[in-house]
Amino acid sequence: MFSLGDCLVNYAHEHVVRAHTCPKTKTGLVHSYLRIGEGDERSEATRVMVAVNDSTIKGHPHPSISCKRAFEWTLEKMVRSNTGDFKILLLHVQVLDEDGFDEVDSVYASPEDFRDMRESNKVKGLHLLEFFVKKCHEIGVGCEAWIKKGDPKDVICQEVRRVRPDLLVLGSRGLGRFQKVFVGTVSAFCVKHAECPVLTIKRNADEIPSDPADD
Amino acid sequence: MFSLGDCLVNYAHEHVVRAHTCPKTKTGLVHSYLRIGEGDERSEATRVMVAVNDSTIKGHPHPSISCKRAFEWTLEKMVRSNTGDFKILLLHVQVLDEDGFDEVDSVYASPEDFRDMRESNKVKGLHLLEFFVKKCHEIGVGCEAWIKKGDPKDVICQEVRRVRPDLLVLGSRGLGRFQKVFVGTVSAFCVKHAECPVLTIKRNADEIPSDPADD
Repeated sequence: MFSLGDCLVNYAHEHVVRAHTCPKTKTGLVHSYLRIGEGDERSEATRVMVAVNDSTIKGHPHPSISCKRAFEWTLEKMVRSNTGDFKILLLHVQVLDEDGFDEVDSVYASPEDFRDMRESNKVKGLHLLEFFVKKCHEIGVGCEAWIKKGDPKDVICQEVRRVRPDLLVLGSRGLGRFQKVFVGTVSAFCVKHAECPVLTIKRNADEIPSDPADD
Repeated sequence: MFSLGDCLVNYAHEHVVRAHTCPKTKTGLVHSYLRIGEGDERSEATRVMVAVNDSTIKGHPHPSISCKRAFEWTLEKMVRSNTGDFKILLLHVQVLDEDGFDEVDSVYASPEDFRDMRESNKVKGLHLLEFFVKKCHEIGVGCEAWIKKGDPKDVICQEVRRVRPDLLVLGSRGLGRFQKVFVGTVSAFCVKHAECPVLTIKRNADEIPSDPADD
């Protein structure tokens, strides 16, 4: 398992863009946007962790509807124009099958398939984070972004314990009781178990796809 | 049942204090703090509904630990010094037994007992709201406050539908699964059913009373 998630990617709106090698993963895929002289006055900013994930709709390598809605709500209704008072911490948890296979049939997979798949997942995850980081830059709010692997509900709670944000923001599909049995309840779990305040934000009614379990 | 809750009590930090008769309930108990010339520029403020309740500890006519913690978090971490960007909507739901009795044995109650009890509940509820309104005034954030009666989880969701806040903030005792069976789960219900984003905030570990079901 690669541990890209151990490398925190720092972004801020005044920055030098610099590609570097992550000291832990030895990959060159992590880009660090380094801050210039705006460290101290932001130390008291409210640190808002936003969990982001891919859309589940096939052929749709975009943020899920619910995490996009949660992120946009946070900027529009909480951060507003007070960008110096908040810092956004973007956490993306990538889910893989136990044997590391996602969409490839394990019987026919070669070592190259493994490698390609891992690379493609890394790139997908970084593209996802890039989407949100770009939005933060546009608005001028400081942010950090990183990737972890595992079961989203467990990893999110672990990261809350590790990073100690002031607030965790989660998008939710707002599915009914019966639909939830099949698709899991990350937000319900985190409301109970995350050791910080949790804000759950449902999708807008006009954004729900034809199958509500999609996102 | 008196419908004090139908009368919205408006507060702001620049105001005239004026006792008046509520047009619906015909009581003189509602005090209106009227705004002076600061209507329009606040129309776009983020409207944060905070549900507040009494402490369950006997002889303790104060806000519950969890709602006080939720309120203080909201001011400190979200509103911060950006008071003009937010408006606090304080909702207090009073719970009464079906027959209107709270602590009085119905067999021995006279009509005067009824009246006294209702008056005392009204006064308790207004004192509770006053506590929070005073804090808003100190900080300089605009607020509204009102009382409703009924089952808190249902009334809170009804009020969200009626008032359409941008956010609902709820304090939570953060009780475990078995304790919850006995003490109810207002926050869990509202996270699922309230038609707006919901922020749940647990008590601090060092604020939990000897019986965790107390608040």
